[in-house]
Amino acid sequence: MKENLYKYILGIADNSLILGQRLGELTGHGPSLETDIACTNLSLDLLGQVRSYYQYAAKILGNGKTEDDIAMLRLEHEYLNVLLVEQPNTDFAYSMGRQFLFDVYHFLFLNELQKSTDITLSAIAIKSIKEVSYHQRFSSDWIKRLGDGTEESHQKMQTAIDDLWTYTDELFRQTEADIAMVTEGVGVDVTKLKDTYYKKVAEVLEEATLKIPESKYFQKGGKHGIHTEHMGYLLADLQYMQRTYPNMEW
Amino acid sequence: MKENLYKYILGIADNSLILGQRLGELTGHGPSLETDIACTNLSLDLLGQVRSYYQYAAKILGNGKTEDDIAMLRLEHEYLNVLLVEQPNTDFAYSMGRQFLFDVYHFLFLNELQKSTDITLSAIAIKSIKEVSYHQRFSSDWIKRLGDGTEESHQKMQTAIDDLWTYTDELFRQTEADIAMVTEGVGVDVTKLKDTYYKKVAEVLEEATLKIPESKYFQKGGKHGIHTEHMGYLLADLQYMQRTYPNMEW
Repeated sequence: MKENLYKYILGIADNSLILGQRLGELTGHGPSLETDIACTNLSLDLLGQVRSYYQYAAKILGNGKTEDDIAMLRLEHEYLNVLLVEQPNTDFAYSMGRQFLFDVYHFLFLNELQKSTDITLSAIAIKSIKEVSYHQRFSSDWIKRLGDGTEESHQKMQTAIDDLWTYTDELFRQTEADIAMVTEGVGVDVTKLKDTYYKKVAEVLEEATLKIPESKYFQKGGKHGIHTEHMGYLLADLQYMQRTYPNMEW
Repeated sequence: MKENLYKYILGIADNSLILGQRLGELTGHGPSLETDIACTNLSLDLLGQVRSYYQYAAKILGNGKTEDDIAMLRLEHEYLNVLLVEQPNTDFAYSMGRQFLFDVYHFLFLNELQKSTDITLSAIAIKSIKEVSYHQRFSSDWIKRLGDGTEESHQKMQTAIDDLWTYTDELFRQTEADIAMVTEGVGVDVTKLKDTYYKKVAEVLEEATLKIPESKYFQKGGKHGIHTEHMGYLLADLQYMQRTYPNMEW
């Protein structure tokens, strides 16, 4: 089995799966009907994308496990998503802050992944980037609207960005699988996206009249399966149906 | 199999299991170290009591299922606890309000269950009632302390009691299994506990300078397996370990 490729795919797909699950929690809880539906649509886009990744991962595994097994039945330390995407929906500013800080990365990442020498990954990237381009516009708009809104919305948006900032650096850290895949021309060298990322993020934050956090202290671990306390609860919800009704079909 | 007896035992045990799980969520989140440990001890008392009930239930089932299977691996609609005990830890006033409104009932209930013609249930009741007597003192003290405390604590305690009040009436409703067990001298006739319950509750609320809610509208369903939306999330947490690692042993 191509272990590095398998892990590399999980690293991409788990980000979208876990973020999609978080967005799904908001269904019925949005600040307005249209926003509510938009968040659910973001979630559906992400979950649609992960199906392609996990189908490919299942093919590589080649041991009879399906996309559902891979998505739903791993143990916590086997999920390789960054810590950013598992952070909770503390309030709507946090949900949009998390989305924005991931979307800017996600767009830059897919833009490069389109050039992958792996044609399956390249094809998924080409298919997904239009959706993610929309996600980025949606979340950037909310950052500006809340940041440059009332005193209260500004304060809440600033707090969310300050808190979530600590999880941004991990996006640009490489695992061994990442490095191996970059060497083969399959993977994206995320270290090269970092400057563009922080520049783009800063542009939106400035337009939103928000301060760019100055902290140089960052959290990491998710890419190696070491998660925050929120992850266990998220997985308990995410996996409940599959674990309660094993091998179910719709 | 003695179906009515089995269901009757679940009706008792599930109350304590679900309340124990809720209390367990507070571990590490109490307002002071001593209170934190006290809540965890309440949880441990309740979980200790349910082991005896579920062991007895497993014996009645007689199909090889263990106490763990019964406690951890049923579906939501197979849990027969009252809605009161599954209500969330909205704030500390809610946690203590829920505890108090259950403890007063629990003590009266066990006091009668001691006289059951079923010697196993009688023995469990005799063993448990001392613990529950302490629970009732603990939660009553908190009702008084918060109710007759600051303006803020009074308001929060009143809100919690007002909200939880709607779940008290179900404690005195009988299922078919209840009625059958009362007829056999095994079960407690909860309808006869109702007046004493509301009198005792009123005494504590008055001492706590809290208003006795006037609402005559009550919720029910738990005793028949129809639960509030909180129950699914609670079970996802409660069952995660058993479902993720089936047949695990410590």
